[in-house]
Amino acid sequence: MKKAILLLVIVAALAGLVESIRAASSQSDDKAVPIYGITIPTGYRDWRLVSVAHEAGNLNDLRAVLGNDIAIKAYRDGTLPFPHGTVIARISWSYVPSEENNKVFGREQSFVAGAPPDWYLQFMVKDSRKYAATAGWGFAQFDKDGKPADEAKMKTCFPCHEPIKARDYVFTHYSP
Amino acid sequence: MKKAILLLVIVAALAGLVESIRAASSQSDDKAVPIYGITIPTGYRDWRLVSVAHEAGNLNDLRAVLGNDIAIKAYRDGTLPFPHGTVIARISWSYVPSEENNKVFGREQSFVAGAPPDWYLQFMVKDSRKYAATAGWGFAQFDKDGKPADEAKMKTCFPCHEPIKARDYVFTHYSP
Repeated sequence: MKKAILLLVIVAALAGLVESIRAASSQSDDKAVPIYGITIPTGYRDWRLVSVAHEAGNLNDLRAVLGNDIAIKAYRDGTLPFPHGTVIARISWSYVPSEENNKVFGREQSFVAGAPPDWYLQFMVKDSRKYAATAGWGFAQFDKDGKPADEAKMKTCFPCHEPIKARDYVFTHYSP
Repeated sequence: MKKAILLLVIVAALAGLVESIRAASSQSDDKAVPIYGITIPTGYRDWRLVSVAHEAGNLNDLRAVLGNDIAIKAYRDGTLPFPHGTVIARISWSYVPSEENNKVFGREQSFVAGAPPDWYLQFMVKDSRKYAATAGWGFAQFDKDGKPADEAKMKTCFPCHEPIKARDYVFTHYSP
């Protein structure tokens, strides 16, 4: 009888363990983008600057492009294609007029980074073997809460980057 | 006679040494801005990003604001006033449409960083003792060749920053 109880306890403990592993892995799945399985790279906000841009129209954002050490070295050396391990980050903020700045300038001329839009974070990850089907690049997009873009959205990444094949599918130039 | 020649050689060597010190210090003076005596901080291009902006009007540039480690920590912690040793860098590039990007988007929407304007680099350096007359901030501006702005230009820095006293004379907010 004692053995039967012990067995039940062990089974219950194992079931709990299995459930917590399943929950943890499901949580981690939730944070990776479909197709490419990329999660937000640790420490990307501390990476060095590649360049900046303003996308007008529907996007209407100000954006900074940052790169990990491999990306920055490749950019500065002019290395193409980008080497294995390159990660390029793109952060977007809403394009908003700065009343504070305009008051000082005496005219409406200053536009600054506002709230994060739904397309807040994007990443390109170079791994020629893993992402062979998309010319060696994996793509990712996340909103301000870290929620990944859906599969339909993720399917649009590579077709949009294809025209810039001559620069290894990367639009942004380095600004010294 | 031998002693006299030796003396002459020593005097000549000393004169050469003095001249090379003078030339070096004059060269270094040439690269510092008037009033504040600030030179371009080593390694500023590797500093972390504070935020980005677009100044329209006469400036018509895209700009990135970077900070040294002290600046970034103060920004992220919300520390005001900025501590001694804070250096904030502002890099400007001409605001130019990207034909390359617009071709992909199918419309005129993409503006990117072009050539450096005359006001390419600006720096704010916090040293309450050294720059006591300007609320603890030293200012600097350089063109793409490292040429400092003239005294008339440098006199305009502090008056323009004075209205933003409540944020320790710094316009740019940190963008997460």
